[in-house]
Amino acid sequence: MLYEWIDILGLISFSISGTLAALHKKLDVFGVIIVAFVTSIGGGTIRDLLIGVQPVSWLLSLQTPAIIFGAAVLAIIFRRRLGKFATSLFLFDTLGIGLYTIIGIEKAMAAGIHPILCVGLGTVTACFGGVSRDILINDIPIIFQKEIYATACIAGGAVYTILAQFPEIDNDFAAITGIIVVIAIRMYAVIFRKSLPSLYQE
Amino acid sequence: MLYEWIDILGLISFSISGTLAALHKKLDVFGVIIVAFVTSIGGGTIRDLLIGVQPVSWLLSLQTPAIIFGAAVLAIIFRRRLGKFATSLFLFDTLGIGLYTIIGIEKAMAAGIHPILCVGLGTVTACFGGVSRDILINDIPIIFQKEIYATACIAGGAVYTILAQFPEIDNDFAAITGIIVVIAIRMYAVIFRKSLPSLYQE
Amino acid sequence: MLYEWIDILGLISFSISGTLAALHKKLDVFGVIIVAFVTSIGGGTIRDLLIGVQPVSWLLSLQTPAIIFGAAVLAIIFRRRLGKFATSLFLFDTLGIGLYTIIGIEKAMAAGIHPILCVGLGTVTACFGGVSRDILINDIPIIFQKEIYATACIAGGAVYTILAQFPEIDNDFAAITGIIVVIAIRMYAVIFRKSLPSLYQE
Repeated sequence: MLYEWIDILGLISFSISGTLAALHKKLDVFGVIIVAFVTSIGGGTIRDLLIGVQPVSWLLSLQTPAIIFGAAVLAIIFRRRLGKFATSLFLFDTLGIGLYTIIGIEKAMAAGIHPILCVGLGTVTACFGGVSRDILINDIPIIFQKEIYATACIAGGAVYTILAQFPEIDNDFAAITGIIVVIAIRMYAVIFRKSLPSLYQE
Repeated sequence: MLYEWIDILGLISFSISGTLAALHKKLDVFGVIIVAFVTSIGGGTIRDLLIGVQPVSWLLSLQTPAIIFGAAVLAIIFRRRLGKFATSLFLFDTLGIGLYTIIGIEKAMAAGIHPILCVGLGTVTACFGGVSRDILINDIPIIFQKEIYATACIAGGAVYTILAQFPEIDNDFAAITGIIVVIAIRMYAVIFRKSLPSLYQE
Repeated sequence: MLYEWIDILGLISFSISGTLAALHKKLDVFGVIIVAFVTSIGGGTIRDLLIGVQPVSWLLSLQTPAIIFGAAVLAIIFRRRLGKFATSLFLFDTLGIGLYTIIGIEKAMAAGIHPILCVGLGTVTACFGGVSRDILINDIPIIFQKEIYATACIAGGAVYTILAQFPEIDNDFAAITGIIVVIAIRMYAVIFRKSLPSLYQE
């Protein structure tokens, strides 16, 4: 139940981030909605295809597409006022990538993938919606250039995966610990403006 | 039989549109052929992967690849004279997206997807070949910016999907009605130069 | 055993080529590693998805990801000295695309695909890692513009596929002949600076 709410908040923040990026590129209404969708479901879709879960998960019910569509429409209507919600959206996004990392790891483990690669697939789940968005709108993916984003997912995912190896540790406890690690690293990076080094400029 | 001819005309127009876009970007012969292929089979491939139909449909026989290849080679040879056929190519393309929308919906329904999402997958089938072409040649997808293209597919697909819910309506009648709606909206948009609003500029 | 060594050398050269391209675009460490991965596994992943082999092959063990990661880290550390190894890297890459073409054809044949399309899927295996790399870093794919690269794969793949139709010809002999054809054409093209014509400029 908690998971479902975090999932909805994460979808909303991803859909809004796709909408804003597409509006900035002057796409038409259809283009904006498509970019909102790709941002929201891109990571999970790539994970599902790599491990062979098809139809991909967002095609199984109307709930996910309806949330993405609704959030995109509201973001289009209130696009001039979204600046006020920047902090809320950042929090939703951070919660979202934390949760998607854990969900991605769980689905990859269920497919029998090696734990180390599961951490990678969790990170793909959380991050490749944004990568797909940037490819669609013809930018170099922003997470390859700025801020500690994927690194937070890798660290939180690794913590969850290690904890999940111990049968005596409750899986919910492991998951929440992993999500908290993602959130803590991400907030630390944003508040203190930490980035990974660009090796080129050394 | 009628379907097969429309399919062939659609493939020819998609292959030529890919060839022309790639020639315009000064790609070499190999690059041109690849872009022609991706334009022609991109939409159906994405649909097949999302619903889990593999090997993807164009790998099942030589017919589709042979048509794409032949049309691309002819388009390369006669590239200076294609301007004369602009109207024919537009008609083939419009017939093609109409048919691909319906085929995509039928395949998605056969995979048990919710009807509303089937309309989306039909639109993906018709439109994402062009989107893939534009990503490959490093442009922002043109259908996100100009003219009523995907919107025509969504409308015609919705009409077909609604008609197909009634067992007393013949499926061929429903399909042809849907295709006609796609064609009518697309021609109306092109003749009267209608576009979806770019929300950014309001 | 020979195959395994060629595979490792090919992975190393692909990972290094991705790393160098990403460093040139000033990506951060995470972005560099991702581009190295996509360059190395992109072609095989697209092939596996098209024919329906999932989980895709590089998820089945740690060996492939470990080689890619190790080569990328070493390439980052020694990035200023890699110029000295340009000839070795070219040789590894050429060996690699030769082998990947043959492996791709074998996997496509095992999935029951028509031999002509198998040659195409072998070429995709060898070449679409580089295509994916260039899309990620927002360039037009270099193999669409320069040098005889894919053409070498198509020719060597065709030779292998024809030889493989004769039950009396040893499969290893056919494979090595195909790889040698790829290498010979590629080296000829690079040494004599041959490119496919860009049709636009005629």
